[in-house]
Amino acid sequence: MLRKKFAIIGGDMRNVYLADLLKKDYQYVEIYGFEKSGKPWALKSSPLDFVLEGSRVVVGGIPLLSDNGFLNMPLAKEKLCFSEFLEKIPEGAHLIAGRLTQQVKEQLEQKKVRYTDLLDREEMAVLNAAATAEGAVGILLQEMPITLLGSRILIVGYGRIGKNLARLLHGFGAEVWAAARQYADIAWIEAHGYKPVPIHHLARFVSDMDAIVNTVPALVITKDILEKVRNDCFLLDLASAPGGIDFKAAEAIGLKVRWALSLPGKVAPMTAGDIIRRTIYNILEEEGGVLS
Amino acid sequence: MLRKKFAIIGGDMRNVYLADLLKKDYQYVEIYGFEKSGKPWALKSSPLDFVLEGSRVVVGGIPLLSDNGFLNMPLAKEKLCFSEFLEKIPEGAHLIAGRLTQQVKEQLEQKKVRYTDLLDREEMAVLNAAATAEGAVGILLQEMPITLLGSRILIVGYGRIGKNLARLLHGFGAEVWAAARQYADIAWIEAHGYKPVPIHHLARFVSDMDAIVNTVPALVITKDILEKVRNDCFLLDLASAPGGIDFKAAEAIGLKVRWALSLPGKVAPMTAGDIIRRTIYNILEEEGGVLS
Amino acid sequence: MLRKKFAIIGGDMRNVYLADLLKKDYQYVEIYGFEKSGKPWALKSSPLDFVLEGSRVVVGGIPLLSDNGFLNMPLAKEKLCFSEFLEKIPEGAHLIAGRLTQQVKEQLEQKKVRYTDLLDREEMAVLNAAATAEGAVGILLQEMPITLLGSRILIVGYGRIGKNLARLLHGFGAEVWAAARQYADIAWIEAHGYKPVPIHHLARFVSDMDAIVNTVPALVITKDILEKVRNDCFLLDLASAPGGIDFKAAEAIGLKVRWALSLPGKVAPMTAGDIIRRTIYNILEEEGGVLS
Amino acid sequence: MLRKKFAIIGGDMRNVYLADLLKKDYQYVEIYGFEKSGKPWALKSSPLDFVLEGSRVVVGGIPLLSDNGFLNMPLAKEKLCFSEFLEKIPEGAHLIAGRLTQQVKEQLEQKKVRYTDLLDREEMAVLNAAATAEGAVGILLQEMPITLLGSRILIVGYGRIGKNLARLLHGFGAEVWAAARQYADIAWIEAHGYKPVPIHHLARFVSDMDAIVNTVPALVITKDILEKVRNDCFLLDLASAPGGIDFKAAEAIGLKVRWALSLPGKVAPMTAGDIIRRTIYNILEEEGGVLS
Repeated sequence: MLRKKFAIIGGDMRNVYLADLLKKDYQYVEIYGFEKSGKPWALKSSPLDFVLEGSRVVVGGIPLLSDNGFLNMPLAKEKLCFSEFLEKIPEGAHLIAGRLTQQVKEQLEQKKVRYTDLLDREEMAVLNAAATAEGAVGILLQEMPITLLGSRILIVGYGRIGKNLARLLHGFGAEVWAAARQYADIAWIEAHGYKPVPIHHLARFVSDMDAIVNTVPALVITKDILEKVRNDCFLLDLASAPGGIDFKAAEAIGLKVRWALSLPGKVAPMTAGDIIRRTIYNILEEEGGVLS
Repeated sequence: MLRKKFAIIGGDMRNVYLADLLKKDYQYVEIYGFEKSGKPWALKSSPLDFVLEGSRVVVGGIPLLSDNGFLNMPLAKEKLCFSEFLEKIPEGAHLIAGRLTQQVKEQLEQKKVRYTDLLDREEMAVLNAAATAEGAVGILLQEMPITLLGSRILIVGYGRIGKNLARLLHGFGAEVWAAARQYADIAWIEAHGYKPVPIHHLARFVSDMDAIVNTVPALVITKDILEKVRNDCFLLDLASAPGGIDFKAAEAIGLKVRWALSLPGKVAPMTAGDIIRRTIYNILEEEGGVLS
Repeated sequence: MLRKKFAIIGGDMRNVYLADLLKKDYQYVEIYGFEKSGKPWALKSSPLDFVLEGSRVVVGGIPLLSDNGFLNMPLAKEKLCFSEFLEKIPEGAHLIAGRLTQQVKEQLEQKKVRYTDLLDREEMAVLNAAATAEGAVGILLQEMPITLLGSRILIVGYGRIGKNLARLLHGFGAEVWAAARQYADIAWIEAHGYKPVPIHHLARFVSDMDAIVNTVPALVITKDILEKVRNDCFLLDLASAPGGIDFKAAEAIGLKVRWALSLPGKVAPMTAGDIIRRTIYNILEEEGGVLS
Repeated sequence: MLRKKFAIIGGDMRNVYLADLLKKDYQYVEIYGFEKSGKPWALKSSPLDFVLEGSRVVVGGIPLLSDNGFLNMPLAKEKLCFSEFLEKIPEGAHLIAGRLTQQVKEQLEQKKVRYTDLLDREEMAVLNAAATAEGAVGILLQEMPITLLGSRILIVGYGRIGKNLARLLHGFGAEVWAAARQYADIAWIEAHGYKPVPIHHLARFVSDMDAIVNTVPALVITKDILEKVRNDCFLLDLASAPGGIDFKAAEAIGLKVRWALSLPGKVAPMTAGDIIRRTIYNILEEEGGVLS
């Protein structure tokens, strides 16, 4: 394996762990923008020119940019604007980061910089879903006054996160209900040994639950449904914006609700960093032997 | 619910159970071709004209036809040719059966008979996979001289059957390895807590296994791979023809191999009949309220 | 069922939930000493005389007494000394509480008050162990930077808590190791599908673990053993005083340690209250029909 | 490790596998009485004198004797009477076998032969229970016309076998009910996430079951209870003689019953042999270093 230079530019704690793990693989890694990470070796960044020069793989944050057009670098002491970053990436490098906008992609193409959006990688989504499900269990353990053993929990949506969460809760001895739209998903719910709920009949089933966990990124748990929920039922939303619960209505009714986002990086940052590492290796392998 | 007439024409024990279960749902059911099923109520069939007359749903076997052009009716005393059957199906009826050929479909269209191929129904495939996995466990329990607890088993392919089987074996305390091609499937294997094997590296992993179960319907377990297998390793193929194991090579080497097909109908005919029943209901509901 | 009067005198949130649950069973319940519980119905206690008068079952805290000889009433506004309490318990009542000292027992016998120590009840210990295991999982999820999926965790001791915790961790896809002394326990560890460690060989196995959870109430994880532990291994002690980890040595080495006690009342107070309720019913049923 | 001579005299296939496994551990092993085992190396036994001479560990069958006073040697061509065997065991040897009668023990003591009854070894019972549970699952898969997924199964008795079986069935997605007498066992049933049945209320619960598995070696499933069972419920008795089901009554009612004994040796003879091997090592280790 010929060693390639990796430049890691910003991102959160996941990228700090990523740097560590790549080094353990004997990769050549330079970092930029982690002065506030608490890691001694990141206290002082080398100049950006030095970090990027000759790098074949440039890793950014997830997302790559923060709202204001600067790079997403929550652990950096100073800001870095995208145009400066773009100018310094070497031609022929491969930028790997999250949520690349159309505009960013075009600018990269002009500079002959290849790119991959991590959020398009299915294997990353699957592994992150496992971490998200663990985070969700942690929240349920914290917020519910009863044990998961013997509790009755409804999961809305049976995609990657729903499947992983159902399995964990079943392992605790919870009675797991799962709601989905498609017949095939309903069949999977049954094949896995849980109780299926057709999502358009949600209202009929919510009143008996100790907790309801939403994973669908669309308003499915409306005011009408919330009004049927028991007042000591805990509501957890794992779906990205705008979420799937009518939070305003839930608060008006006096229900305990929590909206938890980006759990992998929060509850298992080292695993989350490792997931990025492995996804990067897959990307490079598909590209044909950058690693070999 | 307005009752519709169901005519069940042939098929195996699954359709016998199907008839029973539909009757328990208070449906009007007539049957044809189950004289040898051992059920008292099926000893004598009514004439085909009577059975089909006025029926809105006609259920055939899986597959609908046997090789020689007759209807697939293994439990019938007499044969029935497709042309006679076709002539008597009422216009406007819905034929639900398995593996409909292009020719059959065209003839049905000419007669204005709607049709659905059960083998195209994802929910049926999922639920049958759960039954198949149970059947596979039954065979492993029977054929292996060791307990599943503590055994090391490799599942080749991580589709519907592979996923279900892995879960069951894990529940026994087996060390489960699963081989797949796609990165996303490899990610699922890990997320589920099993050991992943890239399918193109199969040869490296087979030598340590107590059993190998194939689920891929293409020759993946070739002579080269078989030569690396331990001589007391049990090989089970669950894939439909042509199967995924080079059976000839396996026998030449002296390996214990078994090819098991159509397990749901064999190991759990009542559940298999129930799966058909529920799939039929889904089909009718999608059609818009035949049942409601 | 003839209703008997229950008097609940002090104890923590578990007894608050206990009062609630007994009322839901239509029992006659009076409480004393929960003014600071946050429950509206407990803001003001009736006089002790009234509460105890005519009561057939008197429930105290776990333990019954705090260190200084007063009743254990953490949620009360005022203290209550045992002699006053003793004076007012009606003859023929049954006192049910935790950790009754020999002296207390003798004084109760003199007053012809029956008593049962909840800590002697096996069913309560088993059910609490399930809650403790959930609490331990919550702590591991919080403290470890990696997912439980794929982690390697050693549980020291395979009693009630060890068994429950092993099962939960296995459900997450952790690689579970468990250490025990007896051959029979080692056999159970294997039968459950985990990896067994003879406890006298602990030192050989600790170096590979991501976390070690002790459940043995005796110093088993000594300085010698701690020195072999990886420096990012998380140590959790669930054993009652004096605990099983040499905390001083662990801190000197710089290991991350946590000692968590009385988890059921903290992580699942309602379930913990329900466990007390059911144990009380069992006690009364054994006594012969107080409830019937 | 100093090698000791092992003499294996009779017993079933488990002892054949035992011989094989001991040899793989580089032990010196002689065998007697396995001519009909189908193993080439056992076709011809050496003379008994040679086999026993100088042996330090003598392993017999489980039980040691068959009903008629001969050694239990189902795979031998010829019979061997106990007195001849006794005469030839060297003084100071250790006889390890199953179900030693008081008379046998006394005769061994006179000859200064130590002995251990394998049936007194808890670790062997635990590991065999795991194998028995797998065998029971195999029978249920074979005999029931429905999948275990979604079935409702009652296990009577929550000892070693009941616990193992419950866990396996739960892994299939069965709804598991378990009946026990003690409050503590009921608590374990709940802690494990199954539905508890007080054994004296058995009659109330049997009518809804798809299968009932008895593990209690005393008549608990009486005629009265059998009369409440659904007529398509499958009954399996795993308890040693006299069993726990009133077989006569069950047959009179027309219920499908099966009594399965000695499952480990039948369904997993190699594992069963390995369990004996490991138990022997434990015995020798306790004895103080015969192996070390």
